[in-house]
Amino acid sequence: MDKKQLAIEKHREWKGKIEVVSRVDVKTPEDLSIAYTPGVAEPCLLIAEDEERAYEFTRKGNLVAVITDGTAVLGLGDIGPSAGMPVMEGKCALFKAFADVDAFPICVNSKDVDTIVQTIALISKSFGGINLEDIAAPRCFEIERKLKEVCDIPIFHDDQHGTAIVVGAALLNAVKVTGKKMGELRVVINGAGAAGVAIGKQLISMGFGNIIMCDINGIICEGDENLNSGQEEISHISNKNKEHGKLADALKGADIFVGVSKPKLVTKEMVATMNNGIVFAMANPVPEIMPDEAKEGGAVVVGTGRSDFPNQINNVLVFPGLFKGVLAVRAKDITEGMKVAASHAIAAVIPEEELTTEYVIPSSFDKRVALAVANAVAKEAEKEGISRIPYTEIK
Amino acid sequence: MDKKQLAIEKHREWKGKIEVVSRVDVKTPEDLSIAYTPGVAEPCLLIAEDEERAYEFTRKGNLVAVITDGTAVLGLGDIGPSAGMPVMEGKCALFKAFADVDAFPICVNSKDVDTIVQTIALISKSFGGINLEDIAAPRCFEIERKLKEVCDIPIFHDDQHGTAIVVGAALLNAVKVTGKKMGELRVVINGAGAAGVAIGKQLISMGFGNIIMCDINGIICEGDENLNSGQEEISHISNKNKEHGKLADALKGADIFVGVSKPKLVTKEMVATMNNGIVFAMANPVPEIMPDEAKEGGAVVVGTGRSDFPNQINNVLVFPGLFKGVLAVRAKDITEGMKVAASHAIAAVIPEEELTTEYVIPSSFDKRVALAVANAVAKEAEKEGISRIPYTEIK
Repeated sequence: MDKKQLAIEKHREWKGKIEVVSRVDVKTPEDLSIAYTPGVAEPCLLIAEDEERAYEFTRKGNLVAVITDGTAVLGLGDIGPSAGMPVMEGKCALFKAFADVDAFPICVNSKDVDTIVQTIALISKSFGGINLEDIAAPRCFEIERKLKEVCDIPIFHDDQHGTAIVVGAALLNAVKVTGKKMGELRVVINGAGAAGVAIGKQLISMGFGNIIMCDINGIICEGDENLNSGQEEISHISNKNKEHGKLADALKGADIFVGVSKPKLVTKEMVATMNNGIVFAMANPVPEIMPDEAKEGGAVVVGTGRSDFPNQINNVLVFPGLFKGVLAVRAKDITEGMKVAASHAIAAVIPEEELTTEYVIPSSFDKRVALAVANAVAKEAEKEGISRIPYTEIK
Repeated sequence: MDKKQLAIEKHREWKGKIEVVSRVDVKTPEDLSIAYTPGVAEPCLLIAEDEERAYEFTRKGNLVAVITDGTAVLGLGDIGPSAGMPVMEGKCALFKAFADVDAFPICVNSKDVDTIVQTIALISKSFGGINLEDIAAPRCFEIERKLKEVCDIPIFHDDQHGTAIVVGAALLNAVKVTGKKMGELRVVINGAGAAGVAIGKQLISMGFGNIIMCDINGIICEGDENLNSGQEEISHISNKNKEHGKLADALKGADIFVGVSKPKLVTKEMVATMNNGIVFAMANPVPEIMPDEAKEGGAVVVGTGRSDFPNQINNVLVFPGLFKGVLAVRAKDITEGMKVAASHAIAAVIPEEELTTEYVIPSSFDKRVALAVANAVAKEAEKEGISRIPYTEIK
């Protein structure tokens, strides 16, 4: 059976990849009288007095909503909310498997920003956090911004920030292994959609000072026409020398290439113009340049989104541990500082003496990662004063 | 430890009464490539082609949303959506325990009918059914009606119809055991809120011809002022002789009393004016009249909502099996016919020779009930042409 057919058969057999189970016995009238009426009235009344007790008496304290509008599902595009559900269920299964965080998938059948924001806000109270997923740019920027304003729980668009955090982590180690110096590095990001813009912002937060963003038309420059809200925002802090040109121009002398764009946009000749390049070509399933070609062009470190090459840059390294951390301290938000802390935590999982050009990022299945991220994020949330309860080590 | 304290401690210990778990292994890159990218694209594309395949490839086929606005939680009233969650979680635990149906609790933070309807409709696509819960009358009538118009999955307000179905079931057997004749019976329902109105309609659907509804002011009559939409609707089909008067007047010569109102509104003297009365006094935790008093007044069959007296009338006998049935045939709606079928199925679980005045309704823990209800409801859905797939016996 080919892989595609196998995936279909397995999904048919599974009948859903998540399941809602009971944590309590309801086998006797006595059981019922505690878990249900009349006993259940007591925790209800305690929450009515103080809503934060919902963290204590309901699943809120370990529960994330994984929400999509189905407009940017994988590389499939706008396939609608129902068709996006297998991805959302898969994500929820990963939350549970990698960090024992409960996650429940919800699809919102609307493409209107304000309608989506209102819908999510109105159902948000029973969750400890919201993971937005597969929502198209530029809508995703506005939805996240507006939700952060109205909700007092963390809102996190994984396609943006999960990707940005894991790229940041891989770059920290790639820089170390190549002996390059932070700050002075020229970083070219190709693809100015949700992920690209978020990566740009994350790298600036992390101290990468010279970011050049490119889209299909080439280098993005402050004042360009037709920038969406996310691109416009980053245009003020990237491309400080107001360069113009194509991707090939941007790459000349660049230290780092980060691709979140389309297959085969980069040639080995372009890589050859880089300065001992670090090349993260993450278009999926076919990268901007294949690893062997990038190496032929002189790249020193190469990463992709694929599991069949070294240095797989996969945001499953981020979201399970990140939400475990914010839930542990009941954080109200996820800040830039927490995202930077997450990148550093992932990078630090690999001891310096084990770093090689083919091992700058931990395996997706490295069990140390989620706990490292969770602790780093929770600690930072407390430091920034946005935790509701004190941080204690998450084990 | 007293009961209340025990309920608090247990809820604190449980940290939520439901949990979202994974149904799939995601331990290897191979696992990930089937359950997540790239394999997951295949079921997504199949659903994009035909949305009904969501029943096959996602959890939709076994998943119910339990939704409240927190305005009529137990007897506690409008305690808000967060404070209602322990009840919703309890309900979800019962769905799983009694019928292996997955149920997920959602609270909507609004009291506006159209906002609530829109919010539920927009997130409804990934569920196979919606169980509305603890929403105050008269808002609940409108929310249910409007949702039924816009959704193509079953919408069921349990406080209305679950209660009505189980009362209907108990009455079928009570009538049998007392030798009364259907059709001619005078039925007095006290309490014209969500449950009372639904019981009235259900009993009329079942062939009880002479229903008298009472509220706090006495008998409800067609043309009365200040009736809400549900009361107004039922006023046209109840109280055919346009009687006026108090509850005590209504009860004179009545065969059946159904109370969904307040404690201690009925005296044994009032019961004494009934015609070999069947008395279902379901105010909780203190009924309209205590069973011993009702018997002193001459009641032949007495039921309450309590587990510590015979004939507990509890809608846990209804909702798990009912949703199991509608999910089994992927029904588009829950009709009057299906509700009547459910009442008959519950009643028929007790063989005629086992019926006594103290045993007119199965125990809440009788495992036969959910399957009986599921099969009856699924069969009826197919008969009425609102099933999406053929009925086969549910085991």
